[in-house]
Amino acid sequence: MSEDSSSALLTDHYELTMLQGALHSGAAERRSVFEMFARRLPEGRRYGVVAGTGRFLDLLERFRFGSAELDFLSDHGVVDEHTLDWLARFRFSGDIWGYGEGEAYFPGSPILVVEATFAEAVILETLALSVFNHDSAIASAASRMAVAAGDRPLIEMGSRRTQERAAVAAARAAYVAGFSTSSNLEAGRTHGVPTGGTAAHAFTLLHDSEQHAFKAQLESMGTGTTLLVDTFDVERAVRHAVEIAGTDLGAVRIDSGDLAAHAGRVRTQLDELGATNTRVVVTGDLDEHSIQALAVAPVDGYGVGTSLVTGSGAPTVSLVYKLVARARGLDPHTPLEPVAKRSVGKPSRGGRKWALRRLDDRGTAVAEEVYDHEPTPEVGTRPMLQPLVRGGEIVGQENVHAARDRHRAAVDELPEQALRMSRGDVALPTLFH
Amino acid sequence: MSEDSSSALLTDHYELTMLQGALHSGAAERRSVFEMFARRLPEGRRYGVVAGTGRFLDLLERFRFGSAELDFLSDHGVVDEHTLDWLARFRFSGDIWGYGEGEAYFPGSPILVVEATFAEAVILETLALSVFNHDSAIASAASRMAVAAGDRPLIEMGSRRTQERAAVAAARAAYVAGFSTSSNLEAGRTHGVPTGGTAAHAFTLLHDSEQHAFKAQLESMGTGTTLLVDTFDVERAVRHAVEIAGTDLGAVRIDSGDLAAHAGRVRTQLDELGATNTRVVVTGDLDEHSIQALAVAPVDGYGVGTSLVTGSGAPTVSLVYKLVARARGLDPHTPLEPVAKRSVGKPSRGGRKWALRRLDDRGTAVAEEVYDHEPTPEVGTRPMLQPLVRGGEIVGQENVHAARDRHRAAVDELPEQALRMSRGDVALPTLFH
Repeated sequence: MSEDSSSALLTDHYELTMLQGALHSGAAERRSVFEMFARRLPEGRRYGVVAGTGRFLDLLERFRFGSAELDFLSDHGVVDEHTLDWLARFRFSGDIWGYGEGEAYFPGSPILVVEATFAEAVILETLALSVFNHDSAIASAASRMAVAAGDRPLIEMGSRRTQERAAVAAARAAYVAGFSTSSNLEAGRTHGVPTGGTAAHAFTLLHDSEQHAFKAQLESMGTGTTLLVDTFDVERAVRHAVEIAGTDLGAVRIDSGDLAAHAGRVRTQLDELGATNTRVVVTGDLDEHSIQALAVAPVDGYGVGTSLVTGSGAPTVSLVYKLVARARGLDPHTPLEPVAKRSVGKPSRGGRKWALRRLDDRGTAVAEEVYDHEPTPEVGTRPMLQPLVRGGEIVGQENVHAARDRHRAAVDELPEQALRMSRGDVALPTLFH
Repeated sequence: MSEDSSSALLTDHYELTMLQGALHSGAAERRSVFEMFARRLPEGRRYGVVAGTGRFLDLLERFRFGSAELDFLSDHGVVDEHTLDWLARFRFSGDIWGYGEGEAYFPGSPILVVEATFAEAVILETLALSVFNHDSAIASAASRMAVAAGDRPLIEMGSRRTQERAAVAAARAAYVAGFSTSSNLEAGRTHGVPTGGTAAHAFTLLHDSEQHAFKAQLESMGTGTTLLVDTFDVERAVRHAVEIAGTDLGAVRIDSGDLAAHAGRVRTQLDELGATNTRVVVTGDLDEHSIQALAVAPVDGYGVGTSLVTGSGAPTVSLVYKLVARARGLDPHTPLEPVAKRSVGKPSRGGRKWALRRLDDRGTAVAEEVYDHEPTPEVGTRPMLQPLVRGGEIVGQENVHAARDRHRAAVDELPEQALRMSRGDVALPTLFH
């Protein structure tokens, strides 16, 4: 994906028809606040993880209606001439605040707050939701896997089980949430995620024998490589691996069968062969629960694919982007008035919000506090919203490593019950003031 | 996404290290056959739908290692100099056959067959799986929704609940599988999917009253537009809608609450107001089951979001890409020998395959027949594999409308039990010969 390609058509048709209607009525220029939040966490999760901020800011920079985009909209009669003129001139000039990427969030946490004219804020809805719903779903699942894995490294290898560009975003989100490496090369290039990978069964099957394959891999990649030992017979493969590589072999990988049993036998066999430093890596339909179950097995690393890129049962986290306040007039000093839909089943809370995380005196988070006014900072609280865009200028861009560090700190701060794998209550109450 | 950007790094690291190992051993040039297939269908589904072919062929054309890609691989030491030279010269020169896009498939159907050197075929693995696993998951879910909806149109509106580029692919796959329109503008531009959309609750909340909002929308978009009637009170909104628009109002949309009950009341109210041609469109957490349940309600169209883009419980369809045969020598006339892994739990069937669909004399499909040799065509069978790439040249590209037509014909051919929404047995047996 070229760096300068426009992101503007990654947008629902109705955002632009709403824009057209609002330009017609004159309300398009009303100062408005949209907020992104989740009404609930999926799958009985105890916390969610904000991810996608860095990608959203990149895409916001490329949210421009150039001639290619305008021609499409014009040729297909999506909007009228007046709206096309507005889009041609569009540059986001408002303000955006958000939870830092990698932060934990809870139901009602205002993880993104966009203040701009209605016109400027409404057309960002689809792109913002696409990015945060996907990336936060992956990061929320990945974070639990990282908790389950403890100090053992996690390898992201799910590219083949999700759309090819979603795979790049998933690799990035997993890294933010604690994975060590990814198989995805584009995630390496675009986002600086460390990549790794050695060989599949096809490599063994291609050669005349498993020994031939091992020999080729070791000669070409060095003794530190990881040999895949379950193509035919694991015990024989491990014996051959150490015969050919010597006791400095980096690692062996097991991809099928009863991973705990295999890992135990392979560890014993490696130790008996003197390969006491050779690591045992397991892969194959792992998720946070099977990783946790393998905690007692002699495993040195986990490769996770499908369950990671599909959010382990929650491929989206149902974030919504709602108009919560707008000025009734066009004067920039007209006060913002709270607005909220009143239909059944989907409660919304009107009005602009601010959030603090409250900590006890040991530094453990105890509550998510959400205010309808800017609260005075006090000891034992941490303000959650930070400036991302000021007057149209992006001020909150950071690299993926900073988000990863923030995530680790955010998880360390959570109460112990947040880290349980079972379904349960949300770890922190959200208190509205 | 620029049309000419390279797709080559949308690839797992290990594909390139396998390439390096095989270049080292000399086996890289062995003629090989890889096949893509599913071992099972997810969620008790009765058929799957092949989708992604057109996108895969586009991406294959852009699978080139240019200086940007090679620099990344070199700077990060992913592969050695010899492998970089090979990648710089790489152009796929092999043959690919596949099931036509939109076809139904079953466990074991060889939906893609790639014959080339090992080197050329192995490096396509990740990209091929990403595209087909995602697009086929969406199309498989979409097809069931289309069956449930019958003649009523389906609107795809899930962009916000999946990664922003996956959203474009999902809109395309849904259209192939029978959806009428999508909200996604980029899917309109890139793939020619018809787009549509009118307004959200924010548009109503922005204005001083619901009537103001309706008036603005109607003046700007014409009487044929769809008014969203559940922001405050549905009955009052419908009354206002017809007062302002007149009885030629195109449609009203209900997005929350008990959709069947609302639809019934709204239909009665519209009819009483004389708006007998005004359609009732429902949206809000629909899936194939709730669509089927609404069959008896007076509904004229369904908008589907989350469940569509997440594959309605199966966001991936677990397609695999396996080496099934390879020549032992380098001479192009060396016969291909079947190969297969022998580990627990994941059976593979070695050897190149061909497939026919067998039909009874009423034209109803009765079996998927998979051969280990090219079968002689006979009356009552339909060959499933068609040439997609011949000697590196793409010969099977077609537009999305052709795939959509093929899908309709493929579903019409299936036995009645294939169209049930309940979990059950696969609709056709796969017979191996």
